[in-house]
Amino acid sequence: MSEVLAGRRSRLRARSAPSGTGAIVVSRPTNVRYLAGPAPAGAALLLGPGDTDALLAHPDPTADPPGPHALAGRRPGEPGDPWDAAEPGDDGLRRTVPEPGQDPAVAAVLLAAAAGAAAVAVEEHHLTVARHRTLAAAVPGTALTDLDRAVERQRLVKDEDEIAALRVAAEITDRALGELLESILVGRTERHLALELERRLVDHGADGPAFPTSVATGSHSGLAGHRPTDRRVEEGDFLTVRLGASFRGYRCQIGRTFVIGTSPAPWQIELYDLVFAAQRAAREALAPGAELREVDRAAREVITAGGHGGALGPVTGYGVGLEIGEDPRLSPAAMGRLGPCVPVTVEPGVHLPGRGGVRIDDTLVVRPPADGGPELLTITTKELLAL
Amino acid sequence: MSEVLAGRRSRLRARSAPSGTGAIVVSRPTNVRYLAGPAPAGAALLLGPGDTDALLAHPDPTADPPGPHALAGRRPGEPGDPWDAAEPGDDGLRRTVPEPGQDPAVAAVLLAAAAGAAAVAVEEHHLTVARHRTLAAAVPGTALTDLDRAVERQRLVKDEDEIAALRVAAEITDRALGELLESILVGRTERHLALELERRLVDHGADGPAFPTSVATGSHSGLAGHRPTDRRVEEGDFLTVRLGASFRGYRCQIGRTFVIGTSPAPWQIELYDLVFAAQRAAREALAPGAELREVDRAAREVITAGGHGGALGPVTGYGVGLEIGEDPRLSPAAMGRLGPCVPVTVEPGVHLPGRGGVRIDDTLVVRPPADGGPELLTITTKELLAL
Repeated sequence: MSEVLAGRRSRLRARSAPSGTGAIVVSRPTNVRYLAGPAPAGAALLLGPGDTDALLAHPDPTADPPGPHALAGRRPGEPGDPWDAAEPGDDGLRRTVPEPGQDPAVAAVLLAAAAGAAAVAVEEHHLTVARHRTLAAAVPGTALTDLDRAVERQRLVKDEDEIAALRVAAEITDRALGELLESILVGRTERHLALELERRLVDHGADGPAFPTSVATGSHSGLAGHRPTDRRVEEGDFLTVRLGASFRGYRCQIGRTFVIGTSPAPWQIELYDLVFAAQRAAREALAPGAELREVDRAAREVITAGGHGGALGPVTGYGVGLEIGEDPRLSPAAMGRLGPCVPVTVEPGVHLPGRGGVRIDDTLVVRPPADGGPELLTITTKELLAL
Repeated sequence: MSEVLAGRRSRLRARSAPSGTGAIVVSRPTNVRYLAGPAPAGAALLLGPGDTDALLAHPDPTADPPGPHALAGRRPGEPGDPWDAAEPGDDGLRRTVPEPGQDPAVAAVLLAAAAGAAAVAVEEHHLTVARHRTLAAAVPGTALTDLDRAVERQRLVKDEDEIAALRVAAEITDRALGELLESILVGRTERHLALELERRLVDHGADGPAFPTSVATGSHSGLAGHRPTDRRVEEGDFLTVRLGASFRGYRCQIGRTFVIGTSPAPWQIELYDLVFAAQRAAREALAPGAELREVDRAAREVITAGGHGGALGPVTGYGVGLEIGEDPRLSPAAMGRLGPCVPVTVEPGVHLPGRGGVRIDDTLVVRPPADGGPELLTITTKELLAL
């Protein structure tokens, strides 16, 4: 794994700090994690100049996530403690503890300046104005430039380690959902079902839920971000469930809609078939080179033809990885094309106020047709189950 | 409640935008909530110039928290929809929907400039450099100044509405913890106990947990930010539990340490008594006018005299309200004094690597001695219970 991380850092440096005296300081937590692995909260990563790569953090044993001290049951400075060791670790990263109370990003720019950096690229889309001012004041002779979203752009295409983690996250998610479907649902509240799903995710090995689990029944069904309430599942309801596991930081998403009771009403079957057809159309449009807006359009056209275009949200899918809702976005205004090894959700949904609705969400990895086309990670059935 | 919110906005304006042509744009979510009540994610609040107060947001019915549309089951523009209505609402706030895709903070500065604002104070400790640049480019003729942490400073002293919400949060927390103590604990995992506590919080009316519930047993006990693992509770363990409810957005915190089995070991009794004495000393030091560092020192001296000063964290308590870990901080370096109606935690703890430890956390409101001294919100017993 440490070679994978070192490779990511090399690629970033080659793209964003080609000169020998340029340095990069990464502060956005998911970007630090992508480039250096799990790190204490608030960590900053310095790349260059030269080979002065360093991870700077206060390795508080009570931090969340815990630092190596806590993992090893050691305190700073004890033998075997990787922090403030004389030599870089196996992964080529020196681990440095800032002065007490010092922002690790400030310690990083100071280290870059001391190593002769003429300019330091920082993440202006993450640093606040106040924090950026503190950094600039710490190194008055060094220019701070904008790294922009270079790390996010690099994160867009996943390597096989990342896809493997997503695959496990999806397996966990499918198992948690499958178990729920075997239990009695009528009479239970949205809130309890959501908590039970989250417990099952953790039981099956998730770090935790990838996002707050949404369970929506009756008139709530089909709402994308519905927060579970004390409403109980009743006969005849549509029930929409959206959940995902986070596994080693990688997050997937599944959404399914079921009908409670023996026989769905005609309007339920009609609406379900419509959303299903739209979701399938977008899934089938996923291919390397496909325009993002064309994938969105594939789903949107079906829903619009069915008379529910106004009920469709602005986005019908987006990238997933260390975050839910990464780039790219599948929307009418999206620019750009899909590439291979980009995991995305496809998640059209229609909610009819007062009645309820349908959402069907999958996580897939874009693959070329020669490799069998898009790889479906979330394999729970999309038949309309009557539970 | 709307008069309370209007009063908060008036006080902020009087302090931070005294001139007639100055405007304020608040973007930090907890600050928006403090001044305008629950609002859709990403909302921005404009105060002035004159009486052009406005809440700007995309009232996505699927937003989290849901906007009024979702609450009312209505869509934008339907009768009774407060968004984009011709008149301000009962609370004096106009509710305005930005252009599709437009940052509500951008819409807010545009509105301020159109209303003749010569300068707009923004939250430079919240806006990223990139977002601030977008705001400045949108209103080239208007100066953007720094509101700094004016709202956070105003939030430090709580009004009785806020303290009432904290009191309910603490009652919920005490009930959830009390019920857990009546159940069998031996053999259960940290993870399951934490999930059960969170379920009980919600059952008793919490919005949700105020922070991730921490359950730490055996050698994990006494770690402040321990994330629950699959370790099972065993006879002879110390068991540390930290939880809190969020009620109407207000968050409290309790921490207790128990011993599992019939008879605590002598080292356990000794360590517990030490932390208890330190925690009591800090609680008794809470008074209007008390220096923050003196309250910290009260706890720290006891722990240090007991030989465990090195195991004490850098902070022994902090403010709570809409956030856990607000100002003030009780630490050796803290400047300033406590005022009345400031809710704080008092939470010293000692962890002995490989053995375990003790944490005792309470939430209290600073009150003058004439009113009976500090008001203890979290009333679960602090005797060393053997469970």
